[in-house]
Amino acid sequence: MRHSAAHMLAAAVLELYPGTKLAIGPTIENGFYYDFKFPEGVSVSENDLEKIEEKMKSIASGAHSFVRKEVSVDEAKNFEKDQQFKLELIEDFAKESKTLTLYESGPFTDLCRGGHAENTKEIPLDGLKLHKVAGAYWRGSEKNPMLTRIYGLLFANKNELDEYLAMLEEAKKRDHRKIGQEQNLFFFDDLIGKGLVLWQPNGTIIRDEVEKFAKEVEQQYGYVRVSTPHLAKEETYLTSGHLPYYKDSMYPAMVMDDGTYYLKAMNCPHHHVIYRHEMRSYRSLPVRIAEYGTCYRNELSGALAGLLRVRALTMNDAHIYCRKDQIKQEFRSVLEMTMQYFKVFGLSNYWFRLSKWSSAHTDKYINEPENWEIAEQSLREVLQEMGVQFTEAEDEAAFYGPKVDVQFKSVVGREETMSTVQLDFAAKKRFELKYTDETGQENNEVFVIHRAPLSTHERFMAFLIEHYAGVWPLWLSPVQVLLAPVSSKHVDGARVLLKELEEAGIRVATDEADETIGNKVRKAAGQKIPYIVVVGDKELGGEPWMIRVRGQKDQVQMTKQEFIERVKKEIKEKIS
Amino acid sequence: MRHSAAHMLAAAVLELYPGTKLAIGPTIENGFYYDFKFPEGVSVSENDLEKIEEKMKSIASGAHSFVRKEVSVDEAKNFEKDQQFKLELIEDFAKESKTLTLYESGPFTDLCRGGHAENTKEIPLDGLKLHKVAGAYWRGSEKNPMLTRIYGLLFANKNELDEYLAMLEEAKKRDHRKIGQEQNLFFFDDLIGKGLVLWQPNGTIIRDEVEKFAKEVEQQYGYVRVSTPHLAKEETYLTSGHLPYYKDSMYPAMVMDDGTYYLKAMNCPHHHVIYRHEMRSYRSLPVRIAEYGTCYRNELSGALAGLLRVRALTMNDAHIYCRKDQIKQEFRSVLEMTMQYFKVFGLSNYWFRLSKWSSAHTDKYINEPENWEIAEQSLREVLQEMGVQFTEAEDEAAFYGPKVDVQFKSVVGREETMSTVQLDFAAKKRFELKYTDETGQENNEVFVIHRAPLSTHERFMAFLIEHYAGVWPLWLSPVQVLLAPVSSKHVDGARVLLKELEEAGIRVATDEADETIGNKVRKAAGQKIPYIVVVGDKELGGEPWMIRVRGQKDQVQMTKQEFIERVKKEIKEKIS
Repeated sequence: MRHSAAHMLAAAVLELYPGTKLAIGPTIENGFYYDFKFPEGVSVSENDLEKIEEKMKSIASGAHSFVRKEVSVDEAKNFEKDQQFKLELIEDFAKESKTLTLYESGPFTDLCRGGHAENTKEIPLDGLKLHKVAGAYWRGSEKNPMLTRIYGLLFANKNELDEYLAMLEEAKKRDHRKIGQEQNLFFFDDLIGKGLVLWQPNGTIIRDEVEKFAKEVEQQYGYVRVSTPHLAKEETYLTSGHLPYYKDSMYPAMVMDDGTYYLKAMNCPHHHVIYRHEMRSYRSLPVRIAEYGTCYRNELSGALAGLLRVRALTMNDAHIYCRKDQIKQEFRSVLEMTMQYFKVFGLSNYWFRLSKWSSAHTDKYINEPENWEIAEQSLREVLQEMGVQFTEAEDEAAFYGPKVDVQFKSVVGREETMSTVQLDFAAKKRFELKYTDETGQENNEVFVIHRAPLSTHERFMAFLIEHYAGVWPLWLSPVQVLLAPVSSKHVDGARVLLKELEEAGIRVATDEADETIGNKVRKAAGQKIPYIVVVGDKELGGEPWMIRVRGQKDQVQMTKQEFIERVKKEIKEKIS
Repeated sequence: MRHSAAHMLAAAVLELYPGTKLAIGPTIENGFYYDFKFPEGVSVSENDLEKIEEKMKSIASGAHSFVRKEVSVDEAKNFEKDQQFKLELIEDFAKESKTLTLYESGPFTDLCRGGHAENTKEIPLDGLKLHKVAGAYWRGSEKNPMLTRIYGLLFANKNELDEYLAMLEEAKKRDHRKIGQEQNLFFFDDLIGKGLVLWQPNGTIIRDEVEKFAKEVEQQYGYVRVSTPHLAKEETYLTSGHLPYYKDSMYPAMVMDDGTYYLKAMNCPHHHVIYRHEMRSYRSLPVRIAEYGTCYRNELSGALAGLLRVRALTMNDAHIYCRKDQIKQEFRSVLEMTMQYFKVFGLSNYWFRLSKWSSAHTDKYINEPENWEIAEQSLREVLQEMGVQFTEAEDEAAFYGPKVDVQFKSVVGREETMSTVQLDFAAKKRFELKYTDETGQENNEVFVIHRAPLSTHERFMAFLIEHYAGVWPLWLSPVQVLLAPVSSKHVDGARVLLKELEEAGIRVATDEADETIGNKVRKAAGQKIPYIVVVGDKELGGEPWMIRVRGQKDQVQMTKQEFIERVKKEIKEKIS
């Protein structure tokens, strides 16, 4: 149905803009698109979508059947003789000896492989909406001409369409780029370069709080912390196996006087080198090495998108080195830690996915069938024993071992992987990871667990912004308390209070602008500041304070000391 | 005198190893060296130094006069016909039309520009010692042959020599590389690459504590924190002026699909971009932007040395953006902050150096004479008003403004710069740094102060290791309290105590080895652990504890709660 609608879109565009060249028009989730090259001088924007949509509907209501017609290469070429992109496609199909078909629907005929409604009248026109225009290269390559892509939504009826549009609207409100800019959290700058986040003070506060929290929890779970450089010699990545296979995703090489260096795209090799730098005994295992490490990945500049697709990413990374008999316990421990985090962030709409190898594709996986068997069964048992919701996915493991992914539904209902816990049988051999066993013998059966429950700072921040819609819980709020002096004569008093609150470990600011108190309060409420205190004669005179609490209609009366204790306690306990 | 000794060294080597080719033999601080190319098959190590030294002394005691002889180029060439390096030097001197001279002293004659004792007997032989052998390229270039460099010390008498040797011995004991290895603080690894520090858990603890301390102090002083990527486009460094001038010190360029990128060698451009991203008003200045930022510098691999000369360095960086009328106050504030730090670290052997421009070398400096005048006078006034010890140095400023360096004497008595505070007039124009003044007009007189009072993690760690000789104050100690269970039946009890101390924020470990308690205590004392608690029946039974305090002979009796409170207090107050 959605593909049929794409035909209608092309038909409408050809009627409205004769001479337009057609590229392709596939279906996508919730709808379809079609790529066009408009005639010289014609430019189509979102303002034109209503007109095109009307035309589509009018053509579709003509109740045209979709008629299939097999044609020879020459017939196809002759039919599409004015359509440069279609001619290219015909050449390609001809090389592959594919059957060529044209589909006719009333006034419009398109080269197409099929899969349509019987008749255009079946298209549910009240569930149709053209909603976006974007640029797209012909065949996705920046070497080809830039085309105009028109996106359409198509649902079974108006209700479903409206629901989806409401969800989009909500997602737009919560868009991390929009809120990031409004709250001065981060930005990108063309001078510095693409995909490189510059974290402003407010964003850095949140980032640091998340990092501090992670460190505290990791310490409870027996992790040690290290710090490693952001690059390494090519020999490191030949040892790890990332070179040459992963080379395209890494930044270009840098040739120095003593060898060739690469920016790191992952932290594991550095951690392996730290593990093996000391002789480890069976007693000292597991060794859990943690680092918030910044990695660099060479994404195409056109593929970068806000915080979700960046070139520099700081991972909540750690590697656990353990014996075979410790795998279950360590895996469980990581999953429990993950759930502990998510609880604090108020997240519950997630589930686990056990991603397994496939014995049918042994070429894709490290050849240790026995370890695969044991490992997958161990992970399954862990998930079962924990009583958590999980699915299993065949042929989705990493090449070096099975993993457990944490899956989420985003605000727009898309399933996304937030983080993964991966078991690794390959590192032990590549990096000669060893320990001495009870008898003093060297044992090289060191299993590695890769884990990053809080993902990267970039991805997790995008997620949190959307999740909280910018209304940060107290412990993450860049400003936790705003002091609003009633008039200029209360400014000095407010500054003394500021110092006092700061010393109690509270992030506090004063609003000293020459404005009415009403304005100050409204502004601070708009900025979603958790607590607002108006500072006037009474407050400075030692009388109880009237506190404005975010999200509450009535003010709360407290002494200064009660207020400070309450805020300190709520910060410490991460109460939102 | 030291140069005369170098002649004696060459004479001795020629007698002991005929056929040796001589390079050059200059004086250096405290002594001299001579570079040699030994004949095929001969290799000289530190074991041979005593023999060579004896031979030197025996030649020198022959009481030979130094006789000067002017020669023509041909005479010189003829005399040195077997000495390839000397012949090269003669060619060069001839090109520069320099007068060539030979100096004869008994059996040995050397091409030399002079500056000797009258007679070899004047050399104070009891103040002489050959002490080191190293490799060195001819003329310092790795394209030339590798020579053997023999170092000698020469002092006026045996006392001075012995004093210096004792100082060297002490420096060796405190060597940051040695202690770094003993205490598992950091290491370098050939697989990862040269000059790239891998911080182990113990080193990371110290690094993190220093960083935490810096952040707390910076917060008190009104800094905000940011986080920026480790690279930027070449346009950034063309704007800053680092390219092309500083290019050789930067890592090689990386060409991406959207431009050429460089690893950052300094954090300032990133901070300037953050400053100018928001519109700033005169009220919001000064803006103090801080970041522990990791920078990358392309040092020659041969020049790298421990933590003192590295390729990756994490700076205690910040940039202060202020109006002209705020310079003095901000500079003073930075110097006070520096002194506050040094006091906590127990450092007092430092002084300040005001490094100024030179109006005779205007080509080296930004051409704003009036700003130079005002700025230097302001900084001088700050130093005078603070009543601190300072010197002034002409023609030592940065190209963009005057600076105040913090100077130290190292354990071996060498003067070193620990950190600098620099004023910058150049950034405002290059990065279009602005603010709006009281009248709403744009003002581009934004002055930048660069400051890094705690230097880089690498340099400061090397300094601290040497300063404390590895005996870390409590707040920096990787392990603050060691619990030593008397026997295996006390291990579980010790683990419960460990949890309790950990929850009080104390870094604590148990020694569960199957050893006598005496051994455990000796081992922990050797590791300089501040507090050792033997855990036996009494301690677990609720009786007062007997605490072994580092550096104290007698044990101290305390209840568990008293002990925890004491340790918490001492950590908080950074009592060593």
